[in-house]
Parts: sequence; structure tokens; C-alpha cells
Amino acid sequence: MAKDFTVTPWEVSGEIDYDKLITEFGVKPLDDKVLKRIEKHTGELHYFLKRKIFFAHTYFDTILDEVEKKHKFYLYTGRAPSGPVHLGHLVPWIFCKWLQDKFGVNLLFQIPDEEKFLFNDNLTLEDTKKWAHENILDIIAVGFDPKKTKIFLDTEYANVMYKHACRVAKKITYSTAKSTFGFTDSNNIGEIFYTSMQTVPAFLPSILEGKPTHCLIPCAIDQQPHFFLTNDVAPKLNYPKVATVLCRFLPGLQGMHKEGKMSSSVESTTIFVSDKPDVVNKKIMKYAFSGGKETVEQHRKEGGNPDVDVSYQYLTYFLEDSKKLKQIYDDYKSGKMLTGELKKFTADTINKYLKEHQARREKAKSQVEKFMMRG
Amino acid sequence: MAKDFTVTPWEVSGEIDYDKLITEFGVKPLDDKVLKRIEKHTGELHYFLKRKIFFAHTYFDTILDEVEKKHKFYLYTGRAPSGPVHLGHLVPWIFCKWLQDKFGVNLLFQIPDEEKFLFNDNLTLEDTKKWAHENILDIIAVGFDPKKTKIFLDTEYANVMYKHACRVAKKITYSTAKSTFGFTDSNNIGEIFYTSMQTVPAFLPSILEGKPTHCLIPCAIDQQPHFFLTNDVAPKLNYPKVATVLCRFLPGLQGMHKEGKMSSSVESTTIFVSDKPDVVNKKIMKYAFSGGKETVEQHRKEGGNPDVDVSYQYLTYFLEDSKKLKQIYDDYKSGKMLTGELKKFTADTINKYLKEHQARREKAKSQVEKFMMRG
Repeated sequence: MAKDFTVTPWEVSGEIDYDKLITEFGVKPLDDKVLKRIEKHTGELHYFLKRKIFFAHTYFDTILDEVEKKHKFYLYTGRAPSGPVHLGHLVPWIFCKWLQDKFGVNLLFQIPDEEKFLFNDNLTLEDTKKWAHENILDIIAVGFDPKKTKIFLDTEYANVMYKHACRVAKKITYSTAKSTFGFTDSNNIGEIFYTSMQTVPAFLPSILEGKPTHCLIPCAIDQQPHFFLTNDVAPKLNYPKVATVLCRFLPGLQGMHKEGKMSSSVESTTIFVSDKPDVVNKKIMKYAFSGGKETVEQHRKEGGNPDVDVSYQYLTYFLEDSKKLKQIYDDYKSGKMLTGELKKFTADTINKYLKEHQARREKAKSQVEKFMMRG
Repeated sequence: MAKDFTVTPWEVSGEIDYDKLITEFGVKPLDDKVLKRIEKHTGELHYFLKRKIFFAHTYFDTILDEVEKKHKFYLYTGRAPSGPVHLGHLVPWIFCKWLQDKFGVNLLFQIPDEEKFLFNDNLTLEDTKKWAHENILDIIAVGFDPKKTKIFLDTEYANVMYKHACRVAKKITYSTAKSTFGFTDSNNIGEIFYTSMQTVPAFLPSILEGKPTHCLIPCAIDQQPHFFLTNDVAPKLNYPKVATVLCRFLPGLQGMHKEGKMSSSVESTTIFVSDKPDVVNKKIMKYAFSGGKETVEQHRKEGGNPDVDVSYQYLTYFLEDSKKLKQIYDDYKSGKMLTGELKKFTADTINKYLKEHQARREKAKSQVEKFMMRG
């Protein structure tokens, strides 16, 4: 059967079949067994786990083994700075903060400013650096512990990163990189090398601690190919294999079937975290794909379809109250709740989150240096 | 006709036809016209130029144009640290010092410690760093002006180097790198990226000065393929094209026809700059390929062949006195000078040079920090 979706670190499109992706990427579903083990340590499960927003993993059990041995582990995530932060970017960061709080662990936050430069004809290194500094405010606004979080730009931390990237690169042939990422002869040699830089932070815990130290990477599933290479290299350099915990993509306003994940480059599809309430209201009212019926009468009679409704999907990401969420699902499905009402509720929920985020972002401006790590 | 020699940045072998290499590499001979122009500015020509040890160039005339416009230019050369320094390594450095003295210009001295690591299975980054620090003493011992010379390791200056290497890498496709260096799918992705790092110092003069500033690279001709890529990229990044001035390879003790250039990895072929007089004597007496005849009687009668005699070849590199050199050439050719006498004279000449070098190397130990540039 022909594949009707594409997921690579540089392209996500089509209506994604996440079950198929689990098989294709050779990752494991976050099943009840591992969820129960997590819950044993965290006391409760984050709603991202309960709702299968984080749905797959590699080696998460190894991290739990470490926890049970009272060993330290590190979190590592990243943000490639090519534009403003949108709602979708927040998802792994929010989960990262929860993991940091629950396990009391260090977080390495990579800003690969050279990645977006290398892979995008229209961006200069000055552009990506500017976006890096903008995005860092949004990262800090998520609420990470400044004592346990180090944020770094690849180009500013290169005195440390580059030499370790060379150690990684020596273990990756062009043949392997080509088959992993689909490179052709027309890719530039920076694109080909880049994956080495994305692997380094997975080994930094061991490097910084001076002993083998495990690393857990919360990220969207499109980043997994990098970390397959990481785990190909890890035993060759005597580092522990890294673990990943993988989330789905927040759909764009027009829905996953139409345009894949939310993307900064298409404004009508995207809610930016800097959007003011009236902008959020307008975008959701105007663009959010609806599972409702054509007329109020028909909707009342036949009910709507929350499973394809983008506003409802957003609630699964941003409404923590699961009882309320269930009620909305039922009411929309039965026709008791109209599309306009659902949209308003979603816009209000997002606006409440963003109001607090934007206030924390203002405060973050004076805290940047506490978080930064330079070479 | 099949080629019976190989010259790439990572392999030099066979009996090199330098005229053929000029055509193959698309460089220009250092002809009388450009030599006269150089002499106009330097007052005299270095004997490396008179003797065609430096025999080819690209864009040297552009550098002379700059000199005539009273514009600054920079020198850039390098040393990939994989072992101890031998006599052959000194040749471009000695010439670099002469150019620095004559033109009063800045020199950037790159130590690509990652290069040898990436291209050599048996070297760790710790090995190449150790050799870097050893080799730097020999570099300083050549006598560069500490006020006008900056030495840097790629891994230690990576905060500056890496971001500019990415700017270069974005302009080089894998296809171009492959055809320039003969890469295959089994090369590692660090090897493929590396040429970007070798290009950066050619652009650093413009970056450091904040305006277009020309750069002249004295080096052995095997490095030229890197600088072709550099000049492919230069106009795309608005930097001036770089100039190169290219030397032949000092033959190994057994002669170029036998083993190509002097190489640190084959001890019987090599005079290290740390060799003591008795070691130099022994190596030349025992290993230096001779152009003499089998018996003294035959040699007296038929004369020797200085053109293939390695001891004589070494004198062309290390005996500045051209009159004396001519006399030795004639005396050896006529049979008046015996092989043993020539070998002794060569060993004495080299030992005199090395004694002074070794004394300067001792003094260099306290001067390292004056020369180093870090990121």
C-alpha cells in the first residue's frame, strides 16, 4: 500500500498513521506496563501520557531501571530556531518540565541554530541567532528550574560540541547518513554532518558527569531518525544508549488530513504563543477545521464529530481537566454543544494558557543568563 | 597515458611530474614575470623561489596588486598534527616566515587537530591534541613574529570556526566534495565536512578586519584541492579569492621515485627535527639514496648524478649559499666529490640547522601563550 504521509526531521506531511509509524520507525508503544512503571515514580501520570499524546518510546524502561538504582539521568530536548514559537512547540517542553519536576533531573536544551541555516535557503545565521534569542524566552517561560537547566546554541557552545561531534561523525559513514535521511548528491556537506551535532547532547550527560549517565529525550517522533544513529554510535564510544519518549504532532488549524502538523511557515494554520486573545479567537473561528454539521438543525439532530474537529483536538493538548474534556466530547458528539460554543471554549482555554505564558515570558527577559551555557 | 603518481591532501605517492601537476591542478607556474614582481617588493628572492622549490601559484598577482595599493593581506598556513615534525614540514613554514618578514603581514596558523583524527583510524583526539602541542613548539621555533602570528587548534577555536564552516558548507554540495576529493559512500561524515574547516582561515582575514582582505596560502601542492573549493565559495560569500603559493615535496631518504614525500609514518625515510647529530648522520649515511657509482674508481672516472641524489636534493632545501651548492653539483657530477663526502656535508648542513632549531624550540616553551588564539 502506498504511504500517504511523510515524517522526517525536515518534513512532516499527510495524514499520519501513528500505529504504522511505530512499526516503520521500530519504536515501542507506551503501553500500560511502562505507564504503570512511570506512575509508580511520579505518583500520577501527566495527561499527555493518559491521552497518548506521548505515545511511543525507545528504552524508557532503561531510564526507569536507572531511577530504581538511584542513578542520575538527564533530559535533553531542543528547538531549531527558524521562526516564532507556536502551540505545537510547547508540547514536548511542557512534558519536559513535568519530567524535570517529577524526577528532579538536569535538562540540556539544545538550540541548533546552524541546523535551520543549513537546511533552509532563505535563512542566514544572523536570522537563526535572532530567533534563537526570541525562542529562548519562550523556553524559559515554560518554567524550567534554572539550577537544573542549561540552554545552549550550537554555534556558541562549539568549543565543546564540535570536537565531540567529530568523534560521533567518525563513526557514521555517508552511506548510513544517506539511508537514514534520504540525502542525495545535491545535499550540502553541512546538512550531511549536522546529525553528529544533534547526537552530542545525548552523550553530554556522560561527558559532563565523567561517568556513564543515561539520557532521556522527549521530542516529536520526526526527530527519532537522529537518535537511531545516536544509538548506533553510543556503544562504539562507550556511552549508554539514549532513551526517547515521542509525541504526536499538534495539528494545524485546517487539520492533519489537510496540512500535517502546525507549522510556523504557514500563518493561517498556526497559533503563535505571542498571539493576543482577539487573534486567537479569529484564527479559531475562521480557520479551525470543524467536525460540526452544516446547519444548526442538522448538528442538533445528528451531532458533530469531535475526532476530526481541530478545536476539540487542541483541548486534548491544553485542557488538563479530563472530566470536562469527556463532557465536551459527549456533548459535541450528541449535538448538545454547537461548533461555535466549542470554538469559543477552545479559544478561551488557549487564551488563558497564553496569557500566563506571555507574562512568564516577560519575566524571562531578566533570567536568560542564568540558563545559558557557552563554550 | 596512465598516471604513475598520486597527489591528494591525504595521499602523495609515486614519482611526481610537477609540470603535469600544474596542468592537472590548473595552477600557474611561478614564472619570471611574477618572480620579478615579487623581487621588486622583497628586494631579493628567497632561494626557495630561485630554485623552484616553490614552483607554482594561484592568484599571487592579486596579492601583489594589493601590496601595490598599500592594502593589508594575511598569510595562512597549517599543520595537521599526527606525529613529530620532520624536515619536509619546515619548508612552507620557513617560506612563510620570510614572507611575513618581507611584507610585515599577519599570519594565521591553523592546527586542524580534528582532520588527522577523522582521516586516521589509529588516532584519537587526545593523540592529535598532544601532537598539536608538540608541533606548536616547532612552529614557534621557525621564528614567526609573536605580534603578528596567531596559532589555533580547530577544536579550541571552534566557537569562531564552526559557524563560519557552516556558512562555507552550505555552499558545497556532496557532489562537489566527492568529485574534488574522491569520496565514496564509506567515507565518514566528518571527513566530508572537514574541507569547510580548512576554508575558514582563508576568509578569517576579511572576518577579523571587517572588510574584504586578501589571503596568501604558502603550502605544499597536495593541499590545493581544498583551496579550489575555497575559491568556488569565496564569491558566493563576498570574500576575495584566496591566493596560494605551492611547493614541491621534500623527498624521503630513499628518494621520490621509491616512496614519494618524506613521511612521519615511515621512520627510515624521515629526518625528524628532533633528531640528534649522530641520528642524522646515521640516517643519511645508511638510507639516503645515492647518485654515486658502485666503486670509488668508477665514480672518479664517470662522476655521480646529483639530480637523483637525495643528499644533494636536501642541500637545495637547506643550503642557502647558491655558489657553494653549484660547486657541489659540479664536483659531484665530475667525480671530484665522492658520495661519502657529499653525505657528510649534507649531514653537517642539516645538523647545523637543527641545532639552532632545537635551541629555539626550547625557548619556544615559554612563549606558547603569546601565539595562541582560542574561541
